[in-house]
Amino acid sequence: EIVDAVVGALAAGPLQGKRIIVTSGPTHEPIDPVRYIANRSSGAQGTAIAAALRALGAEVVFVTGPADVPPPDGVEVVRVETAAQMRDAVMAAHPADAAVFAAAVADWKVVGASQSKIKKQSGALPVLEFEENPDILAEVSKMGDARPALVVGFAAETDDVVAHATAKRARKGCDWIVANDVSPSTGIMGGSENAVTLITDAGAEAWPRMGKDAVARQLAARIADALV
Amino acid sequence: EIVDAVVGALAAGPLQGKRIIVTSGPTHEPIDPVRYIANRSSGAQGTAIAAALRALGAEVVFVTGPADVPPPDGVEVVRVETAAQMRDAVMAAHPADAAVFAAAVADWKVVGASQSKIKKQSGALPVLEFEENPDILAEVSKMGDARPALVVGFAAETDDVVAHATAKRARKGCDWIVANDVSPSTGIMGGSENAVTLITDAGAEAWPRMGKDAVARQLAARIADALV
Repeated sequence: EIVDAVVGALAAGPLQGKRIIVTSGPTHEPIDPVRYIANRSSGAQGTAIAAALRALGAEVVFVTGPADVPPPDGVEVVRVETAAQMRDAVMAAHPADAAVFAAAVADWKVVGASQSKIKKQSGALPVLEFEENPDILAEVSKMGDARPALVVGFAAETDDVVAHATAKRARKGCDWIVANDVSPSTGIMGGSENAVTLITDAGAEAWPRMGKDAVARQLAARIADALV
Repeated sequence: EIVDAVVGALAAGPLQGKRIIVTSGPTHEPIDPVRYIANRSSGAQGTAIAAALRALGAEVVFVTGPADVPPPDGVEVVRVETAAQMRDAVMAAHPADAAVFAAAVADWKVVGASQSKIKKQSGALPVLEFEENPDILAEVSKMGDARPALVVGFAAETDDVVAHATAKRARKGCDWIVANDVSPSTGIMGGSENAVTLITDAGAEAWPRMGKDAVARQLAARIADALV
């Protein structure tokens, strides 16, 4: 009853009545029944963002790949494995007022993943042919009338972070890009802190390095400002 | 004090004084700083085997890739990520009385993994060139005088399980192969049960489907019979 009361209280925030899609975690793209290609993503930042939006009263649809951290309480959880499944889950979650694409979606999948285990034979190495995965951020950004009012993408970069992220924003047609430097030397990937740059139509705004929970609360507050 | 007493009591089992290397979990082979190739492995079976050997009194060196389940208590834990790191950790753990290679080691690694994130550009797909990873099972099986008295490999197969596993035992030069069918339809991968066939010089011995803990206890008892 105490929990219900708290949830009820939280739901009365500035985002009450707003439906927001949040993606999180990596995707796994099968090579064969025992092998896959993955992106490094603990799901920590996406999970924190979903929790922060929920805390401001939003109705959150949380579409998550196989993440290390459990989903937050109080959100609708949709579990997926591949980029194609994540795309379908996102499209099924519309209409929404905003969409925040924090998942580290694989850009490519293996063409014709093998139904049986590829055998290791001396001298014979596998040849993997790739094809592009669906581009969920671009597709949602260009949905036309059904497009969420605010579409937020993420850019995990290892060099020229602001330049790459600014170009990505223009190319995808989204409203904001949350960019970060995931070079191994930053310790951000898998860590508890993040140092992000928010790219909007007003330019690039570097936020100080802070905990992933604090990044999430600040981003949720900005989303509330934009939507309300 | 109660815990210490229990550990002391367990350490007095039939494997007291025996040093056993156990590998567990998947390996992750980097493609670039944000992408990697992995084998599906929760680490559940390897972890259960290490715990069962410890319960019979063995001194266990537990070399584990990034697994879903935590390592057991009472063992020496060595954490690795790639197959090359696992090989080095295993070689450093000798001499040992037995070695149980339950890890799902990637057969291949990417040649010249990129130090920066491979960019997605329209029409340009990545070309991944592979090379073979070290074959830890074969290398340890052929160590000569320093070879553990008992070397146990695993074979995760999706078809012709016994034939593939019997051929693997002969090719690698190990003593036993624990073979299992990891076809998606079996539900074994990621599940709590396992159905294994033990391949020895006496032939193939199919064990009934049982919990992974029960498989581990039965295997540990057989290892104790073989070593003592």
